[in-house]
Amino acid sequence: MDRLFIFDTTLRDGEQVPGCQLNTTEKIEVAKALEELGVDIIEAGFPISSPGDFNSIIEISKAVQNPVICALTRAVEKDIEVAAQSLKYAKRKRIHTGIGVSHYHIKHKLNSSPEKIIERAIAAVKYAKNFVDDVEFYAEDAGRADNDYLAKIIEEVIKAGATVLNIPDTTGYCLPHQYGEKINHLVQRVPNIDKAIIATHCHNDLGLATANSLAGIMNGARQVEVTMNGIGERAGNTSLEEVVMAIKCHSDINMHTNINTKAIYKTSRLVSSLMNMPIQANKAIVGRNAFSHSSGIHQDGVLKNRENYEIIDPKEVGVEESSIVLTARSGRAALRHHLERLGYDLNPTELKDIYDRFLLLADNTKEIKDQDLYELMGQSYKEKGEIQLLSLKIQIETNQKPQAQIEMRINNKKLKTSSEGNGPVDASIKAVKKVIDREILLDEFLIQAMTKGSDDIGKVHMTLNSKNMKYHGFSANTDIIKASVEAYINALNKIPMRLK
Amino acid sequence: MDRLFIFDTTLRDGEQVPGCQLNTTEKIEVAKALEELGVDIIEAGFPISSPGDFNSIIEISKAVQNPVICALTRAVEKDIEVAAQSLKYAKRKRIHTGIGVSHYHIKHKLNSSPEKIIERAIAAVKYAKNFVDDVEFYAEDAGRADNDYLAKIIEEVIKAGATVLNIPDTTGYCLPHQYGEKINHLVQRVPNIDKAIIATHCHNDLGLATANSLAGIMNGARQVEVTMNGIGERAGNTSLEEVVMAIKCHSDINMHTNINTKAIYKTSRLVSSLMNMPIQANKAIVGRNAFSHSSGIHQDGVLKNRENYEIIDPKEVGVEESSIVLTARSGRAALRHHLERLGYDLNPTELKDIYDRFLLLADNTKEIKDQDLYELMGQSYKEKGEIQLLSLKIQIETNQKPQAQIEMRINNKKLKTSSEGNGPVDASIKAVKKVIDREILLDEFLIQAMTKGSDDIGKVHMTLNSKNMKYHGFSANTDIIKASVEAYINALNKIPMRLK
Repeated sequence: MDRLFIFDTTLRDGEQVPGCQLNTTEKIEVAKALEELGVDIIEAGFPISSPGDFNSIIEISKAVQNPVICALTRAVEKDIEVAAQSLKYAKRKRIHTGIGVSHYHIKHKLNSSPEKIIERAIAAVKYAKNFVDDVEFYAEDAGRADNDYLAKIIEEVIKAGATVLNIPDTTGYCLPHQYGEKINHLVQRVPNIDKAIIATHCHNDLGLATANSLAGIMNGARQVEVTMNGIGERAGNTSLEEVVMAIKCHSDINMHTNINTKAIYKTSRLVSSLMNMPIQANKAIVGRNAFSHSSGIHQDGVLKNRENYEIIDPKEVGVEESSIVLTARSGRAALRHHLERLGYDLNPTELKDIYDRFLLLADNTKEIKDQDLYELMGQSYKEKGEIQLLSLKIQIETNQKPQAQIEMRINNKKLKTSSEGNGPVDASIKAVKKVIDREILLDEFLIQAMTKGSDDIGKVHMTLNSKNMKYHGFSANTDIIKASVEAYINALNKIPMRLK
Repeated sequence: MDRLFIFDTTLRDGEQVPGCQLNTTEKIEVAKALEELGVDIIEAGFPISSPGDFNSIIEISKAVQNPVICALTRAVEKDIEVAAQSLKYAKRKRIHTGIGVSHYHIKHKLNSSPEKIIERAIAAVKYAKNFVDDVEFYAEDAGRADNDYLAKIIEEVIKAGATVLNIPDTTGYCLPHQYGEKINHLVQRVPNIDKAIIATHCHNDLGLATANSLAGIMNGARQVEVTMNGIGERAGNTSLEEVVMAIKCHSDINMHTNINTKAIYKTSRLVSSLMNMPIQANKAIVGRNAFSHSSGIHQDGVLKNRENYEIIDPKEVGVEESSIVLTARSGRAALRHHLERLGYDLNPTELKDIYDRFLLLADNTKEIKDQDLYELMGQSYKEKGEIQLLSLKIQIETNQKPQAQIEMRINNKKLKTSSEGNGPVDASIKAVKKVIDREILLDEFLIQAMTKGSDDIGKVHMTLNSKNMKYHGFSANTDIIKASVEAYINALNKIPMRLK
């Protein structure tokens, strides 16, 4: 098996996205997480771009031991000098320099000629070699460049000392077979190609970044440039998690990486949280639903054998377990699975009867709770009364802690409770928690309102974690505080437990 | 150019995701939007799964004129009868039946043999032909099935009358070249393949759904099964918008669809909103950042010529315009662009001086507002005072409209304002709006808090729209109401305007 090097550019190509900027402390936290994840190269920034970025590279270089630290430059002497300075504390260092090589870039952006671009590329690589041994050259917009011209410039920069050749599909334009052919063209036509490593750097504008990166690897690339969660300029870069897991699932690619896949999920969450970039529920590998089965056919299959519908064991990427959610689309197998979990053993006739009543209920309630199952079984769940929100009163005032007063009904008993908190939701949840006798963690909390203005309905998703099981709560209300409390109680009502 | 049929399964494979269930009215709204978008086939549901799903297919059939309406079944007579009933009002109708064909499914899920599966497949197609002419057969888990066995079963179901052959990569396992070879194998080996259309149905578990679908098309498939925004089971299905735009960008694929691409963005937002599935900012084509350029190098390139960094004109998919955001990663070209927009014309020396001061500021403030630019130019923007939030008082009580009292400073002048609203954020924003003399729309409002509990910091993104320009606001606070008001004011301060 060949070794594939993982070059992570979360802190450079990812960090330049609006709203994703990190301060130096946050960058160090991400860099350390990437080191623990096992990435080979961390692109830490573009030091000439600002004093803050320069300083972050200095501090990351001090904080990180194993990965190579890489700094980006244009093919400009001043950029390269500043990059060399920023890397002075790095144990292993690389300068990443380059220039546009497509017709668009040479003519419309650089107002130059193909010959002059080759001269500038050679000069930049040679200049960088004065400061470091490891010089990576990027041929910007290689995705739309002429392959023969690309081969020519690559041959020249290898002669000038480049150790890694980055072939970016800058605009996310290539189809996988085209990108694969491009890499293959270099492997076949560049006489000194064995003296350097080819790197892929793909963007996801057409949703093809992972496929293009894999096509590059299968044609000879041995470094992939990726970001956590696929963040980056516009539609983002290739996702680290997708490439790494595709290689792990496909032994036919015959490649291995140094990534500790069990750390993928927590690194993904760290980056999402620090960079303010929520991950959509259906994001491959790291989305909330990536391992969640809901249709009846799929649930039945998974319960018989996990591999019927799962190619990755969620534990391999650090996710606790795949979940079987009961909805109107669930089949009998899923219903039986949950009833067995609650201690019921049914014969097929009983199951059929319960299932018909289950469907009527599920069509109206979207998601079925344990409470509902107990009721379906004709047994009211005496130990656990459903919590019902009766009223909510909240006061927020500057310089005072928000106060929440909540009235609830539990088993036909009214109950008042109140608390203060760091915010109105925190105060409300703390008040509700007073009636619960087990530890509940809030794993995820997301609110969305869109397109209609500030009086739009806010939709709240909450995921609670109790004894390592996840419970999803949802509510919608024009008042996002009410919706949040309702979503919390919605999730709470699914957890089998006693109330105080 | 060949015609590619777009089969949308947002209402079937998308709708079965936890939290995405729609009621009949909402399903009709989505179906009508899909008709306007120009999809050829709408898979409207799995009618045997529940009475609610059955009824929705009836109502969608009545509401929609042009697309074929398709209903899913297992290879079971009862399923097929119910599907036929559900389609009785459809102007053009299709039954979609099938069975698992991989070793995993035949052995572990169906507990059957390859020969018996072929018999059941033939019987199901023949039975469906009693009710409709147009019968689509799905070979479930074809992605992991033996290609020779797959060819055999496909040949038999075509003989039985199948008009469309769906070759699903059910678990999202295939690499693009493997999926392409699978389709090619059928084209080469199935003698009666010219009597039917091959369809792709790919899942995104490894981030390869779009690439696999395109590989299928390039090898002979003429129908793609997709969902809006790529929603669906686990990591979701192939994204309609990605396949359609990849084909539109690549005339070398030599294929055309009936999709009105200008309706993509609004359909995407409708589905996201009704299904409670936020779209991540870096989602290809439809994400908030899909056409947003932030790095200096890219901004410079786009300002010189849009095509330097954009392969799709955002207007083609119904997005207003690409945006150039000023951050510490922006270059001089972007700064000059914004200064020119404000009426300043600078020589290179002046620009260099301003740019250095701009960077110092940008390192500390993440995103630069017009206000900051005026100040950088040594001119305090007299017409527009920055709004500063001094205090916020909110009262929420059940059965009463939330009340907000706000104290602000504008141009060193303190000002109190108050309002009620449908929720605390609505009340606060209405209070703030009283000091503004222009129409401001709230385009997007997203709150995220993660992994640390209810006292975690809530991160609020808001996008305001004023005169068709978008302004992004951000704030973070343990109190999500405060954070929302701060984010609103943050965005507001970027809009050049007079205050009342």
